[in-house]
Amino acid sequence: MSAFAAVDVIRAKRDGHVLSDAQIDWVVDAYTKGVVADEQMSALAMAILLRGMTPAEIARWTAAMIASGERLDLSSVSRPTADKHSTGGVGDKITLPLTPLVAACGVAVPQLSGRGLGHTGGTLDKLESIAGWQAQISNDQFKRQLQEIGAVICAAGEGLAPADRKLYALRDVTGTVEAIPLIASSIMSKKIAEGTGALVLDVKVGTGAFMKDLATAQELARTMVQLGKDSGVTTVALLTDMSTPLGLAVGNANEVAESVEVLAGGGPSDVVELTLALAREMLAAAGVDADPEKVLASGQAMDSWRAMIQAQGGDPDAPLPTATHTEVLRATEDGVVTSVDAYGIGIAAWRLGAGRARKEDPVSFGAGVQLKVRPGDRVKAGDVLLELRADDESRIPVARADAAGAIVLGATATTPVPLLLDRIA
Amino acid sequence: MSAFAAVDVIRAKRDGHVLSDAQIDWVVDAYTKGVVADEQMSALAMAILLRGMTPAEIARWTAAMIASGERLDLSSVSRPTADKHSTGGVGDKITLPLTPLVAACGVAVPQLSGRGLGHTGGTLDKLESIAGWQAQISNDQFKRQLQEIGAVICAAGEGLAPADRKLYALRDVTGTVEAIPLIASSIMSKKIAEGTGALVLDVKVGTGAFMKDLATAQELARTMVQLGKDSGVTTVALLTDMSTPLGLAVGNANEVAESVEVLAGGGPSDVVELTLALAREMLAAAGVDADPEKVLASGQAMDSWRAMIQAQGGDPDAPLPTATHTEVLRATEDGVVTSVDAYGIGIAAWRLGAGRARKEDPVSFGAGVQLKVRPGDRVKAGDVLLELRADDESRIPVARADAAGAIVLGATATTPVPLLLDRIA
Repeated sequence: MSAFAAVDVIRAKRDGHVLSDAQIDWVVDAYTKGVVADEQMSALAMAILLRGMTPAEIARWTAAMIASGERLDLSSVSRPTADKHSTGGVGDKITLPLTPLVAACGVAVPQLSGRGLGHTGGTLDKLESIAGWQAQISNDQFKRQLQEIGAVICAAGEGLAPADRKLYALRDVTGTVEAIPLIASSIMSKKIAEGTGALVLDVKVGTGAFMKDLATAQELARTMVQLGKDSGVTTVALLTDMSTPLGLAVGNANEVAESVEVLAGGGPSDVVELTLALAREMLAAAGVDADPEKVLASGQAMDSWRAMIQAQGGDPDAPLPTATHTEVLRATEDGVVTSVDAYGIGIAAWRLGAGRARKEDPVSFGAGVQLKVRPGDRVKAGDVLLELRADDESRIPVARADAAGAIVLGATATTPVPLLLDRIA
Repeated sequence: MSAFAAVDVIRAKRDGHVLSDAQIDWVVDAYTKGVVADEQMSALAMAILLRGMTPAEIARWTAAMIASGERLDLSSVSRPTADKHSTGGVGDKITLPLTPLVAACGVAVPQLSGRGLGHTGGTLDKLESIAGWQAQISNDQFKRQLQEIGAVICAAGEGLAPADRKLYALRDVTGTVEAIPLIASSIMSKKIAEGTGALVLDVKVGTGAFMKDLATAQELARTMVQLGKDSGVTTVALLTDMSTPLGLAVGNANEVAESVEVLAGGGPSDVVELTLALAREMLAAAGVDADPEKVLASGQAMDSWRAMIQAQGGDPDAPLPTATHTEVLRATEDGVVTSVDAYGIGIAAWRLGAGRARKEDPVSFGAGVQLKVRPGDRVKAGDVLLELRADDESRIPVARADAAGAIVLGATATTPVPLLLDRIA
């Protein structure tokens, strides 16, 4: 086939037809090799977004993405394996306490993670605020660390689903991120290629998430669960609320600090609740009978955390970076906090330097938002609502406006949204 | 605005919103300058194709395309001006006899033409089969020739609607050619920028055309007529049949030869009929009272033709190039020709070398198909149906299969499709 074939594939999807297996295999392979150009793939991505794909097309597309690179073989790891993937939210540091906790329960967790883009944070950015910690490790170290410690959080190697790497960057600049077939195949191709035996998906719903409504999130969850099952990976999805940030810390270093609090037996109740809920699902999916609440209380999860950080060159005892400038936002009246909008707080943290506007930008480890109140809290005029932290003072005023708009006070408390919204298996 | 703005514009159209004037102006200008990347514009083009545009959006998009370059001022030409544009078909050489005919009636015709791509031919490719003829002329010569002879057929200068030039090439490789807002704005931006006072559109309908059904063609025609009127250009559209090739010659040099036959008072009846119908519309739109049938019979149109060719360096008396290889296709049974499929004949001519597969390919002037029969003709087994002509003998076998499949014989004649299907003013 030639470059003309790309136009045929685009036209077929544009006109609402089902792509053949051969068309999908060819277009994914040809795009990876550069035979299909970026401008052709972006037109196809838009057609997929607007026309959709059948479950069979999504499964084939996912398989083609996996086939574009290597597939890790974790058979040398003697423990059962289970991984978790979150679709991304504000203050979502759950991977940090969850990975060592589940490892301490006897399951190996091969967490290949990403960096933040836009208003949602990235696990690797957060961990890099720990002095010496390295995101890049070899496949050999990956397997050895999984076997010995049971917990690895690292960057995906270049060889894993290179088609996805290329397509993800393209979607980001062409308004084609929000296509369920492409989101599902992107996530699942990486997770299946990494070789995990079980997978728990945390599909976020709400203003701070990618999916704003429950129905769309359920569709995405069902699609991904089916893709996992079809590939022999036991897959379960929890749909969880992301209208409010998770915990009180939003940023990088401050999220690490909050995660360590959880591992030490403290931390905000919602972070603890979600960590335990996901841990139970991972253990069940991996077929391991253990009580994560007891393991957390015993301090074994903290031991796993320290070993995991040290194995990748990090110093778990090093002081975390702090921002050079901080300002507080105070309540201007008495009242009850009725909502803390995840999107507004996420944007504020991003503007403060916790996130990046372009892939190549650095993040500021100490920057972010530290909330002092949660929905339902009663405040008086003059009470501190949150702290804004930045290394660049000029970033504070705009972020302050975003943060102020995100906190709503009322006369009486409203019923809180439950954290766990649905479970799809 | 930055590259982020491109994503906002794409998302807005993707989600079915109406783009603002500022968004349209910015995205067309930024794309012309390379600030908006090809992969962003192709995603937007696909969103436009699938979501559509309001008449106001199309008008603004057209204005932005015109504003991307220069707009010719033909006020120095003392005659009224009228131009014709065909959406493209097989054997459509009408511009060749029409331009000098209308000029001989006292109207100046500023024909900025294009080259063929795919199975449809291009006017400039056809004229380049005349020894010495030059498609590129300066704006000064363009105006002088319009004033002195009244007839110019030439390539559009680089400065005219550069946004369209770039976007057209992109649409061709991204499956986004068939978007009515983009087709209409592409055609009308060039025609309005060339400065014509009146415009007659020949919107082709049928297998050999871009628009396969009458309803879509009518929608396109109405959109373009409105765009013309909004810009002060008197615009009329004829919808004409393109299920059968126009005339008997399909190619380059053989289409020139057939056009000269028409100018000499002969030629196939359908070519004569359409030439006169379009001439009448152009004269009426330009407000000139003349009878093109009489002018054609008088030989004045042939005089204009010769002057027009000579003014651009061509020798109207030079023998036209002929192909090195010819083969005939004969009827295998007795019968009546019930159809000659325009698309099949167009593809055959293209494969023989009359057209190009990629923009940079040369065309073969002598290559093409010379039909010997028309729908309704009665044939006996062994009669010649058509002649295949090529400079590269290896191209003949495949083209022969296409051509053979395009001619259908039956027991009795079927009712012919009328040439003129509708008129929109």
